[in-house]
Amino acid sequence: MPAPIISLPPDRIPRRWYNLAADLPKALPPPLGPDGQPVRPEQLAPVFPMNLIEQEVSTQRWIDIPEEVLQTLLQWRPTPLRRCYALEKHLGTPARIYVKDESVSPAGSHKPNTAVPQAWYNREFGIRKLTTETGAGQWGSAISYACSRFGLSCKVFMVRVSFDQKPFRKTMMQVWGGQCVASPSSETAAGRAVLAENPNSPGSLGIAISEAVEAAVTDPTGGTRYALGSVLNHVCLHQTVIGLEAQEQLVLAGEKNPDVVIGCAGGGSNFAGVSFPFIREKINGAQITIIPVEPASCPTLTKTPYTYDHGDIARMTPLMPMHSLGHSFVPSPIHAGGLRYHGMAPTVSCAQEQGLLSPLAVDQLECYAAAVTWARVEGNIPAPETSHALAAVIREAEKAKQEGKAKVILACYSGHGLMDLVGYQRYLNGELQDVGMSDMEVQKCLHRIKDHPKPKL
Amino acid sequence: MPAPIISLPPDRIPRRWYNLAADLPKALPPPLGPDGQPVRPEQLAPVFPMNLIEQEVSTQRWIDIPEEVLQTLLQWRPTPLRRCYALEKHLGTPARIYVKDESVSPAGSHKPNTAVPQAWYNREFGIRKLTTETGAGQWGSAISYACSRFGLSCKVFMVRVSFDQKPFRKTMMQVWGGQCVASPSSETAAGRAVLAENPNSPGSLGIAISEAVEAAVTDPTGGTRYALGSVLNHVCLHQTVIGLEAQEQLVLAGEKNPDVVIGCAGGGSNFAGVSFPFIREKINGAQITIIPVEPASCPTLTKTPYTYDHGDIARMTPLMPMHSLGHSFVPSPIHAGGLRYHGMAPTVSCAQEQGLLSPLAVDQLECYAAAVTWARVEGNIPAPETSHALAAVIREAEKAKQEGKAKVILACYSGHGLMDLVGYQRYLNGELQDVGMSDMEVQKCLHRIKDHPKPKL
Repeated sequence: MPAPIISLPPDRIPRRWYNLAADLPKALPPPLGPDGQPVRPEQLAPVFPMNLIEQEVSTQRWIDIPEEVLQTLLQWRPTPLRRCYALEKHLGTPARIYVKDESVSPAGSHKPNTAVPQAWYNREFGIRKLTTETGAGQWGSAISYACSRFGLSCKVFMVRVSFDQKPFRKTMMQVWGGQCVASPSSETAAGRAVLAENPNSPGSLGIAISEAVEAAVTDPTGGTRYALGSVLNHVCLHQTVIGLEAQEQLVLAGEKNPDVVIGCAGGGSNFAGVSFPFIREKINGAQITIIPVEPASCPTLTKTPYTYDHGDIARMTPLMPMHSLGHSFVPSPIHAGGLRYHGMAPTVSCAQEQGLLSPLAVDQLECYAAAVTWARVEGNIPAPETSHALAAVIREAEKAKQEGKAKVILACYSGHGLMDLVGYQRYLNGELQDVGMSDMEVQKCLHRIKDHPKPKL
Repeated sequence: MPAPIISLPPDRIPRRWYNLAADLPKALPPPLGPDGQPVRPEQLAPVFPMNLIEQEVSTQRWIDIPEEVLQTLLQWRPTPLRRCYALEKHLGTPARIYVKDESVSPAGSHKPNTAVPQAWYNREFGIRKLTTETGAGQWGSAISYACSRFGLSCKVFMVRVSFDQKPFRKTMMQVWGGQCVASPSSETAAGRAVLAENPNSPGSLGIAISEAVEAAVTDPTGGTRYALGSVLNHVCLHQTVIGLEAQEQLVLAGEKNPDVVIGCAGGGSNFAGVSFPFIREKINGAQITIIPVEPASCPTLTKTPYTYDHGDIARMTPLMPMHSLGHSFVPSPIHAGGLRYHGMAPTVSCAQEQGLLSPLAVDQLECYAAAVTWARVEGNIPAPETSHALAAVIREAEKAKQEGKAKVILACYSGHGLMDLVGYQRYLNGELQDVGMSDMEVQKCLHRIKDHPKPKL
């Protein structure tokens, strides 16, 4: 049996990011400003540095990774691609399962792939401090690390429910010199407004984004900008190193295109990272089933229409063309905090509208069961977010068994679960239950945004 | 600049363990039984399976890794060797620093390297359950994982101070199906004796070993054995994959033998793993400075004589030839729980007696400072144990700078610190202080074992 881990020789390491916006058959609709007109780049300038805004709106297919960014990414990249012989044997499937392991990064997930370039571009633009939000803490850790690499200050608003569940995420951020506060906080007008309505609010990514954006744009020195860990085009762009490396590694493993590509999907950046290079292949004619996996408690791609909606609860962001449960939606406090976002990345949503995706929603008990199976068979303990991808891997491997087809399945192992063991303890104690949204619950949410404009493709 | 991570092609993966006992100029003295005579293998049979006892006493230079063991190790091996360009630049040193990263294993440290073969050999011998002790929890996690891979039950006695500091280690063990209790416990005669004297005992590895051995040998079915995570010859043997892989990777990086090899040393297995293949080179004439790094609060190699002593507090183990602070020594509750052991592996101790090592003791504030520097410059957050190796790396890199020599430094990054963030939080809060033992404190400890026999080389 060959070695399960497929590494990548230095001369095959990708040196460019792939921009799906260049290849989508129908172009990405623009974000809209308060006047209902497409947002102009300069309107975003108080929030992001201009060099990242240029990336955000770029339709160039390949964008060079700056040398200093590449050298920093290479502290842990290329990440291993693992052929899961043990899981295949355990499931008795003819499928060949490959998992791209993003858990080996400093912060333990794929998030540093974009944190590093975001910190670098901000520093290049003369920015001295970044603010951001974080759900499970993966992104807050990643941006703290990236800021420490490039000498920036960093302030992180962490969703309250995760802040309480995962106290050591704060310590991680502090090790890297970042500052972390629970959101909603009393430090911003947005946070105070939420607390006034509900002092015990568990928080949400939407609320935390409002706080972080406010903290950036109200800095009187002008030296602060905001960084977002998912959703935006430039974030998805930076994550494509995952899929690009996996393509090279699959070739080394003697494979052609995979039959199935799987990634968990909250805001969409992990899914984008692993899938966009393969969506390109699909657009060019390859037969690939591409599966974003979302929690049944926050089913954007599977249960909501394509609409314009805000990225945050305080409606500070432009209206973005996406699948959304509504910017004021507060999801169940599931342990997969990184998947608790009301919307889906515009690029991912746009690909969905063009029939390129086969989304799936999975409830949490199935995900934890998949995670424990994985740990006992393949070793590592996955993040609750990652467990959604693994649940889909197991479903697809069992389907391949029923069909008797030796399918090639590629999935992204987005992060490890070592900061999320509270959830595992509760699962093992039998304290968790399924919390999927019913169609009626979804409809109630959608009612609130029914008058929003609809994007045109 | 070339890529920092040096992987290893499958055809260069080591398929044999290296046994230092074959090459030590003066042979390893035997362990002694209660009668003062060398222990016969059959006397150990209630504790260990005979196939591992054979490895324990083997003087064969190379021992083949069984195919099923190798396939399991390859789920995460070969581990990355990383050239630390960023740290070199930060320190302004002409040294070339290489770090072998064992933190990528399922349990997050080097421990699974021996847990996997130990579980496999026990299963081959017909054993159904393993008992063990754990300090920081690294070993207990590793053996739980390994037992789950080979269908064994597993019970772990965890040193109380670490059990309280690191509650999630228990959850990790449970994810892999292991059972974890705090030691001293009321489940064994050894534990009850300690609790009777001091109900608030913080525990020690020596106490936990007594409990685990007792739980194994008193199983009336005879289907239980004990597994030890360090100290013993076969454990050090299994860890040599670290150094053997590093040798191959250094060749790929264009290096000859390193000038300095560094590993943290508690019981000695991590140090043994990275260093033994290089001690062989040194015995064969290479100029290599080989540095085991121990905590100043538990200074066995740097401050104690070579003597016979028991491995555990209840004196259930044979007398072993080693550097020791005495089997009843209870070290300060430092966060580097894996280095809180009163003795040092007989093979490492024997190498020290033959002038092959240059041991170093470092106190905890210097170690935490090194760890935070590492995290901010190289990314990952190291285990408190690992921080001892990193403190020595920084000292050696600064020495190379003073001397103006482009030395090659190799160190083992034994594990990550994600389960040890309590210690970081206390360090960042300024709550930690140095706790190194004075010569007088050491002498008091040694007085208790002054009448023990002395090993003859």
